[in-house]
Formats: sequence, C-alpha cells, structure tokens
Amino acid sequence: MSHSFGPHFLHIPGPSPIPERVLRAISLPIIDHRGPEFAELARTVLAGMQRVFNTAHPVLIFPASGTGAWESAIVNTLVPGDRVLMVETGHFATQWRKLAEKHGIATDFIPGDWRDWADPAAIAERLRADTDHAIKAVMVVHNETSTGVASPIAAIRKAIDAEGHPALLMVDAISSLGSLPYLHDDWGVDVTVTCSQKGLMLPPGLSFVALSPKSIAAAKAGGARRSYWDWAEMIAFNRDGFFPYTPATNLLYGLRESIALIEAEGYDAVFARHDRLAAATRAAVQAWGLEVLCRNEQAHSSVLTAVLMPEGQDSDALREHILARYNLSLGQGLSKLKGRVFRIGHLGQCNELTLLAALSGIEMGLADTGVPHQRGGVNAAMEALRQAA
Amino acid sequence: MSHSFGPHFLHIPGPSPIPERVLRAISLPIIDHRGPEFAELARTVLAGMQRVFNTAHPVLIFPASGTGAWESAIVNTLVPGDRVLMVETGHFATQWRKLAEKHGIATDFIPGDWRDWADPAAIAERLRADTDHAIKAVMVVHNETSTGVASPIAAIRKAIDAEGHPALLMVDAISSLGSLPYLHDDWGVDVTVTCSQKGLMLPPGLSFVALSPKSIAAAKAGGARRSYWDWAEMIAFNRDGFFPYTPATNLLYGLRESIALIEAEGYDAVFARHDRLAAATRAAVQAWGLEVLCRNEQAHSSVLTAVLMPEGQDSDALREHILARYNLSLGQGLSKLKGRVFRIGHLGQCNELTLLAALSGIEMGLADTGVPHQRGGVNAAMEALRQAA
Amino acid sequence: MSHSFGPHFLHIPGPSPIPERVLRAISLPIIDHRGPEFAELARTVLAGMQRVFNTAHPVLIFPASGTGAWESAIVNTLVPGDRVLMVETGHFATQWRKLAEKHGIATDFIPGDWRDWADPAAIAERLRADTDHAIKAVMVVHNETSTGVASPIAAIRKAIDAEGHPALLMVDAISSLGSLPYLHDDWGVDVTVTCSQKGLMLPPGLSFVALSPKSIAAAKAGGARRSYWDWAEMIAFNRDGFFPYTPATNLLYGLRESIALIEAEGYDAVFARHDRLAAATRAAVQAWGLEVLCRNEQAHSSVLTAVLMPEGQDSDALREHILARYNLSLGQGLSKLKGRVFRIGHLGQCNELTLLAALSGIEMGLADTGVPHQRGGVNAAMEALRQAA
Amino acid sequence: MSHSFGPHFLHIPGPSPIPERVLRAISLPIIDHRGPEFAELARTVLAGMQRVFNTAHPVLIFPASGTGAWESAIVNTLVPGDRVLMVETGHFATQWRKLAEKHGIATDFIPGDWRDWADPAAIAERLRADTDHAIKAVMVVHNETSTGVASPIAAIRKAIDAEGHPALLMVDAISSLGSLPYLHDDWGVDVTVTCSQKGLMLPPGLSFVALSPKSIAAAKAGGARRSYWDWAEMIAFNRDGFFPYTPATNLLYGLRESIALIEAEGYDAVFARHDRLAAATRAAVQAWGLEVLCRNEQAHSSVLTAVLMPEGQDSDALREHILARYNLSLGQGLSKLKGRVFRIGHLGQCNELTLLAALSGIEMGLADTGVPHQRGGVNAAMEALRQAA
Repeated sequence: MSHSFGPHFLHIPGPSPIPERVLRAISLPIIDHRGPEFAELARTVLAGMQRVFNTAHPVLIFPASGTGAWESAIVNTLVPGDRVLMVETGHFATQWRKLAEKHGIATDFIPGDWRDWADPAAIAERLRADTDHAIKAVMVVHNETSTGVASPIAAIRKAIDAEGHPALLMVDAISSLGSLPYLHDDWGVDVTVTCSQKGLMLPPGLSFVALSPKSIAAAKAGGARRSYWDWAEMIAFNRDGFFPYTPATNLLYGLRESIALIEAEGYDAVFARHDRLAAATRAAVQAWGLEVLCRNEQAHSSVLTAVLMPEGQDSDALREHILARYNLSLGQGLSKLKGRVFRIGHLGQCNELTLLAALSGIEMGLADTGVPHQRGGVNAAMEALRQAA
Repeated sequence: MSHSFGPHFLHIPGPSPIPERVLRAISLPIIDHRGPEFAELARTVLAGMQRVFNTAHPVLIFPASGTGAWESAIVNTLVPGDRVLMVETGHFATQWRKLAEKHGIATDFIPGDWRDWADPAAIAERLRADTDHAIKAVMVVHNETSTGVASPIAAIRKAIDAEGHPALLMVDAISSLGSLPYLHDDWGVDVTVTCSQKGLMLPPGLSFVALSPKSIAAAKAGGARRSYWDWAEMIAFNRDGFFPYTPATNLLYGLRESIALIEAEGYDAVFARHDRLAAATRAAVQAWGLEVLCRNEQAHSSVLTAVLMPEGQDSDALREHILARYNLSLGQGLSKLKGRVFRIGHLGQCNELTLLAALSGIEMGLADTGVPHQRGGVNAAMEALRQAA
Repeated sequence: MSHSFGPHFLHIPGPSPIPERVLRAISLPIIDHRGPEFAELARTVLAGMQRVFNTAHPVLIFPASGTGAWESAIVNTLVPGDRVLMVETGHFATQWRKLAEKHGIATDFIPGDWRDWADPAAIAERLRADTDHAIKAVMVVHNETSTGVASPIAAIRKAIDAEGHPALLMVDAISSLGSLPYLHDDWGVDVTVTCSQKGLMLPPGLSFVALSPKSIAAAKAGGARRSYWDWAEMIAFNRDGFFPYTPATNLLYGLRESIALIEAEGYDAVFARHDRLAAATRAAVQAWGLEVLCRNEQAHSSVLTAVLMPEGQDSDALREHILARYNLSLGQGLSKLKGRVFRIGHLGQCNELTLLAALSGIEMGLADTGVPHQRGGVNAAMEALRQAA
Repeated sequence: MSHSFGPHFLHIPGPSPIPERVLRAISLPIIDHRGPEFAELARTVLAGMQRVFNTAHPVLIFPASGTGAWESAIVNTLVPGDRVLMVETGHFATQWRKLAEKHGIATDFIPGDWRDWADPAAIAERLRADTDHAIKAVMVVHNETSTGVASPIAAIRKAIDAEGHPALLMVDAISSLGSLPYLHDDWGVDVTVTCSQKGLMLPPGLSFVALSPKSIAAAKAGGARRSYWDWAEMIAFNRDGFFPYTPATNLLYGLRESIALIEAEGYDAVFARHDRLAAATRAAVQAWGLEVLCRNEQAHSSVLTAVLMPEGQDSDALREHILARYNLSLGQGLSKLKGRVFRIGHLGQCNELTLLAALSGIEMGLADTGVPHQRGGVNAAMEALRQAA
C-alpha cells in the first residue's frame, strides 16, 4: 500500500536536494553565450569555483556529468600505455579504473575491502618500489560515494613527496566538494574532478576540473587525442569569459546562485553542518544495532553513511518499501554491495529536520519489513543533534 | 545560536506548504482576463470547486483572503440590526463575531471555553427560545483554526430543522475544506466560506463562498449596501467564464493545479491521510505527557493539533527557539491562548515524514528549553503511523 | 486559420506583461505571515510603495484587486447620503460612480464625451456653487484606462484649493502608478487608489491606497460600517510589519521584486520609456489614417492608446482576428465604446520591439480584415522611436 | 545610450528562446536517477526522440552540448588513421573537421565558398575515385548554422548508394532537427547528431545521436578508445530506462515538455511556420537591398538567414548597437565571415510577431548606424507573412 503523497525526501548521496532559489535561477530565459551578459556570468562562476576549490589555478567547467571530468583528467595528462596507481576504495574507484583502462592506461590497483580509506602508507610503498617512475599519476577518490569512507588527501600528497616521486596526484572530489573541507592548492593536488549535483546542490550536467601548473604542463606536453575534453582551448576561451563550444548556460545560472548560498552560510558552517548530521546518523545506526560500513573511525564520511544489513536481509527490499510507503529515497548498494547496504545521504540542502525525517522513515521501514534491529535510532540522533548545537 | 539552513518546515495551521507544481503554475505568464483562454480556466476552476464543496449550486471566487468571504456572507444576506446566533468556539469565531458587529449585526454568542465544539443541543435551545424568528442566521466555524476543534455541521443543521427555525446556516470552512470531508448540499449549508491557503494548498489571496438557493434568494431580497462582495453580479458574470472585476488570474492557475492534485490523490485518500497524521500527533502529545487543547474526543481536528503548555511555560519562547534552531514554524496561541498553546499544522502538502520532522523539532525544542515532558513522542507517532497503514 | 504558436503578445492596458524575475519571485515557498521573515518583507514593500507614490504618509496594501481599493476609499471616508463630485472621463469613472452609488453616495457627475480629460475649471465651477460644502470629496480618474486620456491632478487640486473648498481629493491611479509621474504628497491628494497588475507589473490580486493626514482624520471621525477595508486596523498592524488578516504573501514577494526592477531602471527612465512608446503609437495611428480617441493634445496617455475604428467597422472582429492569427491581445472597447475602439497597452514590461511587434500585428490585421487604412504605421513608429533616442 | 529594458529578443540561430513551460519543467525538484519515476521519464523521452528523428533505431542522449555528439560519432565508428569525406559548407563543417583531425582522422574536405550546399554530385565524384574504399564515412552538415544553407541529405545518400560505396553517412542536424523535416531512417542516415538548444527549444546541455544498424555494427566492431561517449553501454542501460552515468535529469524534464509542445502544434505545422518566417525574412533582406549569404535558391535555410553587409560595413558594430539600443541579439559572423555577415535566427519558439520585432530592430539599427540600405524591409516581411497564411 502506497501513501506517497507530498514532499519527496531525497536522501541518496547525490543528486542532493536542490534549493528553491537554485531551481528558479536555472529557469531564467536563455541568453547568447557569445554576448557580454554571458561573459560576466562566466567570470563570476569561474572565480567562485576557485574559491570553492581553494585554488588560484584554473578551474574548468564542462557541460557533462562528473564522469566527463574523470575522462578529461585522463586524456589530457596520460597516453595509452601509461601506468597509474589507484586504490580500491569502492565502486567509484573501480569505475574510474575501468574508465582509465578503456583509455589504454595500465592501472596498479591497491586492493581494498571497501570499508577503509586509501592508506597513504600503502601508496608510499608502491611508489617506493617504482624506481623508474613508471607510475605517471596517483588517482584517489576523496569521498567514496559507494561506501561513505573519506580518504586523507593531504597525507597522500605528503607520502608521494616523501618518496620523491614525480607522479601527478589526481583526486575525485565528486561527492566531497562543497560538503567537506577541500584545499586543492594547499594539499598539492594536480587535478581535482567534481560535478554539480552533490555539495554544489545543482542538477547534474556540469563537471569541473581544478588544475595545477604541473598538470597544465603535463597536458601541454602530452596527453591523448582529445577535443571535447581539451584543457588548453578551454583555458584560452575562459580568459575572456567564453567557452570553446556551447556551455550549459542555465546550469551556470544555478551555479552562481549555489555558490552564493554556500558563501552566505559560510564554508565553515556548511562543513560543520555536514559533520553534525553525519554524527547523528551514526548514532542512529548504532542505536539500531546495525553496523556502519566504514570501519575506520578517522574515515567516516560526513556526506553519506552506508549501513550494513543484518545477515540474510536485503537492502533493496527495504529501500523499495520505504520509497513506496514513506516517499523517501535512499541510496542502493552498488556492485558487490548490492542488497547488502543502503546509503543515507546527508549532503547539500539538508538540515536537522530533513535528516530526522529520513531516519524516521528508515526506523519505520526496518520495523515494517521485519529487519532485526532495536528501536531508538531517531531518539539517539535527536540527542546527538541537540548536543552538537 | 541559529542553524536555520535548508528547507523550512512550515507546520502552522495555514498557510500550508504549497506543492511545487502549484508554485510553478502560479508563475505562468498573465493572460487577458477578458479573453477565451481565461474563460476556459474560469469554467474549469468553478466546476472544480463545486466538486470540492460537494455542491450543485454556485461557488464564487473573490480576489481576497478568507476574511473577505466572511464579509461577503454577511453583507449579502443581512442588514444592520439583524440578529444572528454564533458559538464561541475560539479566536476565529470571535473574530467573525467582531466582523459581524462592525457591520451592525447583533450577535447572540453562545459562550465556550475554546476546548469543545459547537454543541447542536445548545444551538437548538437558543433557536427554540427565538419564537419570533429574530435570528436570521446561525454562523458556525467548522474547524476552529485557533484550537483544533471540529464542529458537527450536519448535526447542527438537523438541530435547526428540528426546531423548524428558518435561520440560514452559514459555515466557516476556512481551514477544513480540502482536508476534512465537507458536504455543502447534503448537510444543508446555506453559505460556506473558505480560502486558498489551507486544504487547497495555494498561496493566500483567493476566498470562496458556496451558496444555496435559500441564501441566493436572501441576497436577492435584501442584504446590506455592497459592491465588491456582491453575489448577484458575480454569478451573472461567471456564467460566461468571466468576473465583474479583475480576478487574481495567477492564483487561479494554481487552483486548477491544486484541484487536479487533490483529485489525483483522491478525496478519501486525502481525508484519510489527514486523519492518520492527526492521530499520530495526538499520540506524540500524549507520550510527552502534555495535553491536547481539545477536550472532546469526537471533536479532534485532523487539520491541526493545539497543545497546552505545562503551567508556567511560555509557548512563544518555545516556538521562537524551535524556529531559530530547527527551522520549523509552529502556530502561536491566539488572543487568550497567547503563550499558553502552540499549534501543529498537519494539513495540505504534508505526509508521514514531514510530520515526524516537525514532531522531532518539537521534541528537541522541549528538551532544549527545559519544558517538563517525557521523551518518546516521536516514537509514539511512528508507532501510530505504522499501525495506520 | 490560427497560427497562435509561440510567445503571446499581451498589449492590453493591463494586466501588463510580468517580468520573469517577478514571476519567479511569486513562486517562492510560502512563509508564516506572523513570523520575523514576513515582517521584514512587509516593511520593505510598504516603504517601497511610499517611494512609488511619493508619499511620506501610510500606504496600505489589501489582498484584493483594484476595485477593492476604490471601495476602501469610499467606506472609510463617506457615509450613505454623502455627496461627491465625479467626472465622466470614461468607463472606469462611470464604474467608480456606480460603486459609490451602491454604497449610498450621491454623485454629481460632470458629463463628458470620453475623449477629454477632467477639466479643473469645470470642477472649480461646481465647487463654487456648492456653498454649503455638501460635496465631501472630489473623485477623479488619473488615467482613464478605457480611453487613454490622462487628467491633470495637480491642477485639479489647485482648483479645489482656489475655491477654498474642503472636499477630499480622491484619485484613481489604477493604470498610471508606476507608468506616469505621480506625486501623491506634492499634488495634495488625500486618497490614491491603485492595483498590482498595471505599472507595477505584477499579477492582479493586490490593491493599494495612499492616504493623507486629512483622509486619515476623516476615516477616524466617520466613514461607513466596514471591516475588511478598514484603514485604522491596517495602519496599526502595519507598524510592526503585520496585517490584520492573512496577506497575499506570494504577491508581496513579487512586489518587492517589481519595485526593485523599477528602481534599477530609474523612475525617470521608466516614465520616459512610456512617453516614447506612446508617441510612437500615436505616430502609427496617424500614419494609418485612423483617429486616436483622445482629442486633447495635453491629455494623451503614455499608458495606452485607444484607436477609433472607421465608421461601420467592428473593433472586436479585428481584435479576434489578430488574436487568432498573430497571437496578440489588444484591449476591447468598453461599454459605449464596445466595437468602436481598440486599445493598445504600452505599459509596464514593454519596450521598442514589443511595441513594434504589436503595431505590426495591428497593421497586418487591418489589412487582413479589410479595414480602410493606409499602410506605413510601423514605419512611422520606427521613425518616431529612432528620433526619441 | 542604452534602453535595454524589458523582454530581450533572442534571434541568434541558437540557443533559441525557451518556452515558459519548458523553463518551468526544468526547475522541478531532482529525483533519483536510479528510481522508477526516472525510468518512466527516460523511456518517455527516448521514445519521443525516435519520433522526432523519424527512426526506429536507438537514439542516445548524452549530458553534453552538441560538440559531444560529434565526438561520439567519431570515436565510436572510426580509428586514428581512418579517412572520411567532408564538405566545407561553413564554419561548423570546418569545426567538425578539426575535431575529426584531433582524433587522428584524415579528412578529405571538398572546398566550398560558404554560400552553397554540399553538392551530391561532388560527393559522388570523390567516392567514385575512392576505389579501394578508404573513405569510411561521409560527414555532412544538414543545416549550416554559420551560413543559413541547408544541404540535401536524401540526395547525398542516393549519391553514395549510386556509387556502391560502403561509407557511413553521418549528419550534423544540430540546428535542423525540430525545425526542418528530418527522416533519419528513410534518408538512410547512419549517425545523426544534434543538441537541445535549437529546434528542441531547450537550454544547452543535452546532445543526441541517432544510430542505424550499420553504425551500431561499426561501433561494435571497432572505433577508438572511448568511455563517456561509448554507445554500447548506453544502449544497454537505456533498455531499462537508465544511463551508465548520471544523466542531466532536469533537462530531461524539459525535453519531455518540449517534445509535447512540438507534437501539440504538429510536426507539419512547425515546419511550415519555420518556412513562413524564413521567406518573410528573405523578403525583408531583399527590400533592404542587402544580400542573403546563401546563393542557392534551393538551399535557403528555414532556420536562420545570414545577411551580407555592404562593402566596408562592420556587422559587429551593427549588432552591438542593436543589442544596446533595442535589446535584440543577432548572430555574429563566424571565422572568415566575422564582421561580414549577421545572422537572424527564426527557429524554435518564434512566431510572426517575434520575427517582425527582430526585423524592426534591424531596420532601425541599419538606419541608426548609417548602413546603406532601403527602408521597407518590415513592410515586405508583413506582406509575405500575410500572404503565407
């Protein structure tokens, strides 16, 4: 029996709910992307994204979803046959690896059980062994959207440097940017990729890359055959506030608005809010007697929480019931976690009450479907939120 | 310290939250209100409102808020010096009385303690005493928005008829129409007044009156000086899909959409949803050890619940804290209930999870501000909602 | 055969086309009209409307269309049996008179042929004859929306004062405010009434009255029975940013935006634009060999132009053809002008090209339907617009 | 001196003006792109696009602008070193060639003067000479957006077939689909590429490819390294209403609406309207004594008209004046046509009056800036439009 009337609660780890002001902004009439009004828009959002990434170097915006930014990172800096080092943090790290391999890149994939972060020491060990510097890049996912595990980017950079290895550091900040602190320049990242529909609270359709002098030089000197994803032409056009081909203008209207919203709340307040909601979510999971997928206390993501189902229970059956009965969308378990976990997004346009609504829906769903658990998750979350004030 | 980021939770007993599709509809470009496209819109919404009121007689739409519909009922049927019978169900009954008195109407006001419904027997008694039929109308509030008490309209009609009294029956369905079952014709109501921003899930700015042959005849034969609120001219213009003066076109776009939404869900499903949410709310109040203002079990409103504060506690301080801290708006206590109650709206575009979000905010707010209570309200509400499935 | 695809051109003298930003503003989620966010909105628009009216005295906003503001002016200052002086400038002056008479007001109606303004000398003459000051108010339409004739308000005030007559001056600025210069205080107006859907570029649903100390005193001392339209209660509530009954919140969002748009363009630029478009329209009418209804050179309205049809030609047939064939709405002739004139609105969100589009549609429509005329109207308008630069 | 108030007139050859209903659709809240509601949306738009392309074979939708669809066509069917035949119809044919070359494709480029179509005979001649079938594909632009010249796709297919040449036929229908008749299957096209912001009346951000069994087989058997643009994975996911990576959901909402709008008007009516507006535009250009860039009477585009400036006159100066003074955007001359032509878009959400507004702006601009011309362009266009009824 379905009661799915009224506001939908979207608590998947992206797309995240979109603020009203952003939705209204993207519905403004289209303008000429070769005219002066557009140039001003472009300059505003390009400068704004530099602040979001904490970088003084170029940020590029592609009309594409996040996967396009990944592809851009690879084809601009690597050629078929190049070798890279990646870490199996979860489904998206694995997807990124597949994408690299489709482009002819050899991938060293440090194995993982999808419950821990990318270990700087393991990366260092591999680089140490790479005495002839065959590894051209280290590619790491900052926040694994499939598992709710966040990796220590600054420490990874330090590990690379400590080995004196020249590899580029390329980071997937798809689901972290705008939700977790991110210091592209200070952390020494060469390429960061992200997209619009997570911490930036926009519809999908924009992808971003933040560069460094080193990655720009690498692209200039080499890279694979490319056109759509080419950095050099994009950088050249951006100087005047334009793009080499038609940009997704209406989404850029929304981007201007969402950067303004983030900066009105304040970066620190945004990050603190994500931390607060994540801690409350873990408190609820613990009270239910369920297990958070992430096993590393230091690596809990403030963007999403993946919850392990008790043995023999199917997370997709639970999710379907909750969607039909309580109008709440939760994230599914991906690839090897299918049916094993559900994921609770608490990113972007979320606050205390949207989270408690979601946790209530889960707590009722667990009871409705007979999943073994204790009650009291919502109570525990309320307690955690009150104390976090 | 304020954390009011993200979606606002509006749980006052009106305006109720407005569905996205309605908001988009009201933002469509304006059209000529004397052209053919408008006439089709007008005919659609006028016919739709007859279904909502369950009436075969004219429904009129004024560009005004609900207070205007009250005024319209009075000036079309009564003249200064006329006498009416009203019942003190709460703040809005009292306001309606004041309005009547400003128009020179003498009001017999059956006193009440704002915790019970309009008693048919008490009305019958007054009418019985009115042997010369000085009382021209009985005016009752169906759902007292200030108290959360619903009165038995059909029984009141029967009481009037049983006395053989010719008084018109005029009903304020401001906060009930679209949320509680309402049978204008079957119940024998002569004038029902309502507005847009409650069960109809629209912005404020439209008011409605549903008529009967008897009230139309009364208006034709008499009534006070009037122009804006005049029924006869409105009925005449409506026949062709037009209005005697400029209508609020964009709100009529929204009305078309909201009637469609209600009918897509189904009237019975809408009413059952309101019942379910109201029962869960009362379960929460009981679990907190607080008292629901309404003392009559048969009269609990499914639209809103007014909650009495423990002695010495100020409901406005609680509400202000909850708004600042949890981005949740609750209704204040009005006039003699100021500071004594808070009101939880659960009408219109609400569902299980919006209600639980609101109840969570209240439960946290009670704890934060030191209001004596037991925990477990949200738990009780979840239980009630699950069992109501 | 209809080709009515694509953007509709709305060139009636109101509702005027609504800017995109205003439409988006009115579709923002509703808020509690008793909360702090609302109070800030209310204070912003109340102060803004004082600038629009050029007044330091209270401006009141009613959830109603413009007719409601008329009614408000009458019931607050006059009682049944009072006498007022009005001028027959056209349909709307006549309607206002009817409204006054419905409220029991005796009206001296200076006759007119609907082609000239309200003559200050004629008003003075009547007041001179009113030696016992039976006339309580002079009520004049600033811009007659039915005829395109604007009357000299400042001169009328001077004429009243020159006679030493104590009558209130009440002005209908329904279709002028925001389009023509208007100086409520400097001109010595006691009550100005207007609405949202003309120069303010909003949907219909808001009406406004600007007051003076003298009219406020008159209302305090007298006036008819009233409630919805009562000034005193409105003024009292407005002081804190609130309203005595539910306001039309979403339209107030739009009002905030439209005042901002007007002030961004600048009042002088707005008025100059209206003048420019009006002059170009008259140039087109002259080139067509048709006659502008207004016969007084000083009285041409910059808001709309009413055009007389050649003898034996039906303006409604022309308008219907133009609507079906060119997706252009023109204003009809009202009451005694029905079928005799069509009205071209050039107010609000209009510019050179929207006007030329409209004039093109008219020029083609004249040819299509065989109305005797010369070509060259659009050419003449283009010439006029170029020279006005 | 700028008067740019009020509605902007966008008459560039894309992005085309976006209908209000589409703008509102794209601003609906985001949904889970892995849920059942999304699958229904995807199936609706995928089926709809097959009707728009007139194909029974798969149509793919990439979150990208049109350039991405080009890249997709190349990397799925060709490998570096392959040879293709292209025709220099203008700027965009040249851009497509550059893109192909960046991907290592050798291009035979039949030279052209940008004032004529792609000649089937010339193509046949080249293919005849290609006895060893080194040419893997013929790549033609259907409607050259830079010049306003449309090429005969069906005849080109026949020419290829007459030569018995196995080359794939790949067509750029970027600015034609939805505005000109297009029969993907009947014409025997193997890959058609297009985008959202032209005849589909959407914001930029979606690109489309329509395939054939032959091109699908070619992709299966070969093609370059690819991931984002890969067809096989897209086809596989689309079967269930999903996408291999995050789709641009909100633009898909708009696509559903724009297909509905096109089909409500009717394909034939849409195409006839474009023809009518184009003929009127050419009539205006002729009356001005200016020259249409396209010299081939059979090849005039109904989507846009490029107009040659008189010798010594700068089209960009004219365009800038018109934008500043009349709030009208026209298309610039691209690459070798820079400053030499301006382009008038008359596609998508355009009608008689928007066109006449644009032509009026141009006629005034020509006069304002002293470009030698005769008056009477708008008159000629009105005449043409009236006769086309």
